[in-house]
Amino acid sequence: MTDDNATLLDTAARAARAAAVPLARAGRPAKDAALRHAAAALRARSAEILSANAADLAAAPGLSASFLDRATLTPARVEAMAMGLDEIADLPDPVGRTLAEWTRPNGLRIARVAQPLGVIGMIFESRPNVTADAGALCLKAGSAVLLRGGSESARSARAIAGCLREGLRQAGLPEDAVQLAPTQDRGFVGAMLRAAGLIDLIIPRGGKGLVNRVLEEARVPVLAHAEGLCHTYVHKAADPEMARKILMDAKLRRTGVCGSTETLLIDAEVAPSLLPLLLGDLAAAGCTFHADARARAVMPVLPAATDEHFSTEWLDAILNVAVVDGVEGALAHIRRFGSEHTEAIITEDAAAAEQFLDGIDSSVGLWNASTQFCDGGEFGFGAEIGIATGRMHARGPVGLEQLCTFRYRITGTGQIRG
Amino acid sequence: MTDDNATLLDTAARAARAAAVPLARAGRPAKDAALRHAAAALRARSAEILSANAADLAAAPGLSASFLDRATLTPARVEAMAMGLDEIADLPDPVGRTLAEWTRPNGLRIARVAQPLGVIGMIFESRPNVTADAGALCLKAGSAVLLRGGSESARSARAIAGCLREGLRQAGLPEDAVQLAPTQDRGFVGAMLRAAGLIDLIIPRGGKGLVNRVLEEARVPVLAHAEGLCHTYVHKAADPEMARKILMDAKLRRTGVCGSTETLLIDAEVAPSLLPLLLGDLAAAGCTFHADARARAVMPVLPAATDEHFSTEWLDAILNVAVVDGVEGALAHIRRFGSEHTEAIITEDAAAAEQFLDGIDSSVGLWNASTQFCDGGEFGFGAEIGIATGRMHARGPVGLEQLCTFRYRITGTGQIRG
Repeated sequence: MTDDNATLLDTAARAARAAAVPLARAGRPAKDAALRHAAAALRARSAEILSANAADLAAAPGLSASFLDRATLTPARVEAMAMGLDEIADLPDPVGRTLAEWTRPNGLRIARVAQPLGVIGMIFESRPNVTADAGALCLKAGSAVLLRGGSESARSARAIAGCLREGLRQAGLPEDAVQLAPTQDRGFVGAMLRAAGLIDLIIPRGGKGLVNRVLEEARVPVLAHAEGLCHTYVHKAADPEMARKILMDAKLRRTGVCGSTETLLIDAEVAPSLLPLLLGDLAAAGCTFHADARARAVMPVLPAATDEHFSTEWLDAILNVAVVDGVEGALAHIRRFGSEHTEAIITEDAAAAEQFLDGIDSSVGLWNASTQFCDGGEFGFGAEIGIATGRMHARGPVGLEQLCTFRYRITGTGQIRG
Repeated sequence: MTDDNATLLDTAARAARAAAVPLARAGRPAKDAALRHAAAALRARSAEILSANAADLAAAPGLSASFLDRATLTPARVEAMAMGLDEIADLPDPVGRTLAEWTRPNGLRIARVAQPLGVIGMIFESRPNVTADAGALCLKAGSAVLLRGGSESARSARAIAGCLREGLRQAGLPEDAVQLAPTQDRGFVGAMLRAAGLIDLIIPRGGKGLVNRVLEEARVPVLAHAEGLCHTYVHKAADPEMARKILMDAKLRRTGVCGSTETLLIDAEVAPSLLPLLLGDLAAAGCTFHADARARAVMPVLPAATDEHFSTEWLDAILNVAVVDGVEGALAHIRRFGSEHTEAIITEDAAAAEQFLDGIDSSVGLWNASTQFCDGGEFGFGAEIGIATGRMHARGPVGLEQLCTFRYRITGTGQIRG
């Protein structure tokens, strides 16, 4: 880190902290007005945003097709960003909710009330729309945000952040509540990670390399999405048709999302009858497999799986397969290879489902539903800033409520401890 | 860190993780039985514990009187530890509580359920009773704990931890759910702080040096108690008698606790009439003062305060005094010098109280009550493992509920995202 980065971070973070004070105390009308003005600005400045995006793409030749797909903005995508902001304005205000309330024998009334976190540092990779989504979610949650996106989208991010700042200004809120990193220097990221006391929370969103660097270097609390190595367990009492339908969705609906199933576990008793059906469906849709010895005893055509396969988040049309002995066998496999993200059991046996859901350490457990439901929208959160895979503060989809902290408000009539 | 420490930590933490699995799934009866058996063992082995404590004290000559007072065990203190364990057994089980529950339009039922954290690393200083309190709280919260106490109390801690392990054994639970650090080497603490993936949470309890080292070195989430620089603000509409009574308690009931008031803020309008009364009470009880220029204009006898005084957590019969202009003036002072711990306003004006409680960033705000109420017992939590001063996961007193994380349990009937 150069001194320049430390100075730039200090200036930006102090401006964010100053802006966070009035933002935290702003009511819902001002915050929603800022979001709607920002959405209008995105629509009004669509041509400007698209031309910034064209300049980004022109400056970064030789990028992969999938990268280009994520990084390219179109008029429809700009409109989708604007609609996203309007939708966040429609969500209830997470700040000020009474989370719990009780009265003590001495008459003190204690309330736990949701409050903004303060200043959030968001570190992300290519997609330019993250600037709009993350900026808007933090704004609605009453926290200032310092956004550091990928270099390949720097011009697009600046044009989009300009709209959010315009919205804040029009609503009478401090525009420094949404800031972009003033430099793309990697050392600035290091300065963000060390900014204890200036930044309250770091949210990394991107590949393993980024997330691991953040977890290793951060001196600030981190809400990280590490890995989604999700399992679907077909119990012996599964309804075969339901198992087929759910597994197809869990593996193949979208293979690149963290909630997609990477490993199928199936009870030994039903493997001979059910495994060929389940894998036949998937194979017909282009899926390939890595199977353990017991699964290969049922279907010798399957390629052999190693421990490394069972530890791999494929994010592709590839499925690990293992035969297990009942719920405890499935739990032992998940405990050994899983990432505590999302696991599903398919069964008609309620006691087995209870045993499974009690036994996993994962943030989300499902009974008779697809692992792909691990998503803020599907949870009813409206929008999410990411999925948290740690155990502290928030787990699973992180929406507006999870972007808040809380305070205790205690009302007395002169009580002393004495 | 030597390789020895890394190896010792790895062995201990893996044993703790293995023990955490059955402990997390143990029901309330088994956990409470372990606590009651442990309490019985403390009583039965009182002589053994007192002799270990005598050996600790003999091995550490030249300690200060206040240190000796904290480190010395007596038959009454051993009985108090045993009673503390029985009381924790009486508390409701924090694990398995449904924190929220809702049904989605597609029929999925989603519940957020409290779950154990996993493995907690507790790093603390002298008091031997922390071994009993912290071990029992973690046990009841369903988490394994690795305790690393001060070297001066190592023998006492081992005798006490032996009782907790005996309780676990008698209840059929794995005794490695409560472990002492196998070495007092400082490098072992470093190994704990770097044990991401093996330890889920570090709780430091001790002086600033310890807490700052933990915050600087930890690669594991930390629930830290940093500083308690608490303010009592006497608003112009305060009831004078209530203000006198509360300030006496807030400053002098116990000066060494983190919730004691370090700074008095008083409105300019009432300072001439009220300040002499408030400080007169305190001076008569032995308190000394550091006052800003405006307070000294009212009472020239007061010594002058510097910014450093206003930034100091005295933990002693010393009070900083500043005259402010209304709620916003008080908030500006607190934002500049406070530690976001606990602040109180004394006023008969409900709107002023609202403005104050809305404006602070602190974990606890009180209206017409003493700052010394910031305590798990006073909140009704039954027992606390400490006070958290960060913004993530838990703030304020940390009791059994705050020692838990949560999971989502989703019940479907074959839903897919499609």
